[in-house]
Amino acid sequence: MNPKQALDSAASRKIAEEIPGYTYGTPEAAKSPVSPADLELLKKTVNFTEEDQKYLHMAGEVLADQTEEVVKRWRGVIAANPHLAQYSLGPEGKPDAHYSADSGLRFRQWILDTCFRRYDQDWLNYQHEIALRHTSVKKNQTDHVQSAAYIPLRYVIAFTAVINDAIKPFLSAKRHSEDEVEKMHRAWCKSVHLQIALWSEPYADSKFAPDEW
Amino acid sequence: MNPKQALDSAASRKIAEEIPGYTYGTPEAAKSPVSPADLELLKKTVNFTEEDQKYLHMAGEVLADQTEEVVKRWRGVIAANPHLAQYSLGPEGKPDAHYSADSGLRFRQWILDTCFRRYDQDWLNYQHEIALRHTSVKKNQTDHVQSAAYIPLRYVIAFTAVINDAIKPFLSAKRHSEDEVEKMHRAWCKSVHLQIALWSEPYADSKFAPDEW
Repeated sequence: MNPKQALDSAASRKIAEEIPGYTYGTPEAAKSPVSPADLELLKKTVNFTEEDQKYLHMAGEVLADQTEEVVKRWRGVIAANPHLAQYSLGPEGKPDAHYSADSGLRFRQWILDTCFRRYDQDWLNYQHEIALRHTSVKKNQTDHVQSAAYIPLRYVIAFTAVINDAIKPFLSAKRHSEDEVEKMHRAWCKSVHLQIALWSEPYADSKFAPDEW
Repeated sequence: MNPKQALDSAASRKIAEEIPGYTYGTPEAAKSPVSPADLELLKKTVNFTEEDQKYLHMAGEVLADQTEEVVKRWRGVIAANPHLAQYSLGPEGKPDAHYSADSGLRFRQWILDTCFRRYDQDWLNYQHEIALRHTSVKKNQTDHVQSAAYIPLRYVIAFTAVINDAIKPFLSAKRHSEDEVEKMHRAWCKSVHLQIALWSEPYADSKFAPDEW
C-alpha cells in the first residue's frame, strides 16, 4: 500500500465486525447542520494543524489494541459518581448489561474514529448523531432502553476533562518519546475540544434540545 | 501570615488597581442559576481534587507576572483568524483600542481568578457574568461598544483548546520540574473544562441566549 491507501484503510478501521447502532457513513445517521466550511473554521479555532493530524494518527496506532482498557478507565470514573452513573441505568436504577455492552463497543470505536477518520461530511453527520444521542431527541432509541431522558450538556462538556486526562498514560504505553507522547496528547485534546463544540449544537438549538443543560 | 491567611490574601489578588467592568463579588455581577451543590457535582465530573487545587495555586504563582504575555499569545491566535477577530472589532470592522484594552485587563485578571479564587457563590456569579458577556444578553454593554452581537458558543468552547495548549510553555518558565509543570497544566485544564461547562449555560437556556451556537 502507498501512504494514501494506508490512510484510507486506517480510516475505516473497526474494533469489531458488528457494532450495534453504529451507523457511521450510512443514511441512518443524522444529517449534520454543520457544513464542511464551518468545520474548517472550527479546526482553525482549535488550531488543528497537519502535524496534529499526523500525531493523532500515531495516537490511533498506540491506542488501537487498548480501547477496551481505556473505556474501562473512563467508565470507572462514571461508575464512581452516582450523578453520572444514573444516565446509563435502566428502570429502577438497575444496570442494563445490553445497553452497557453495545454503547461500550461504540465508545471504543469512537477512539479509533477520533484518530483515524477523515473529518468530512460523514464524520460531521456522525458527530451530530452522537450529539443527538446524548439529548432527549435520540437518547435510548438506538439501544431500545428505558433510561434517563438525556445527559445534561454540562456533564458532557465537563467529563471530557477526564477523557483527556485519563488517556495520557495509555499514549505512553508503547515506548514513544516524551515529546511524541506530548504531541499525540495535544492533538487528541484539540480533536476532543472540536467535538464537544459540535456536540453542544443541538443543546443550543431551540429546534432540537433546549433547556437540557 | 498563616497558610489560611496566605490563601485568603491570594484569592483576591489583582493585576491592576482599577479594572474597568470587573464586577467580581459586587451586586452588579449577574446571579448564577447554578448552586454550590451543582458546582460540587461539576467538580467531581472533571475530577478536580485537592491536589489540583494545590497545583492550580502554584500555577497562579508561576503565571502572575506573565499574564500580559499570556493574553498577548492567545490574542495572537485570535488576530490571525478573521473569523474570530471579528467579534472584538468595532463598527465597519475597525479595531477598538478602548474595548481591547479593558477586556484585555479582564482577560489577564481571569488567569489569576482561575488559579487563586475560591470556587464559591461569588465565583459562580462571575462565571455567569462572563458567560452572559459572550452572548447577546450582555455582550458590548460593559464596555459601551458597538461590536458583533454575540460570540457563537462553538467558538467559545473550541478556542479553549488554544487557551490550554498555549499556556503550557508559560508554566515551564520558572524552573519547576516536568512533573510539577504537568500537574499544574492538568489542574488548569480541569478548571477550564469546568468553566466552559458553566459558560455554556445561557446558550442552552431558552430564557437567555438560544440559537447562538
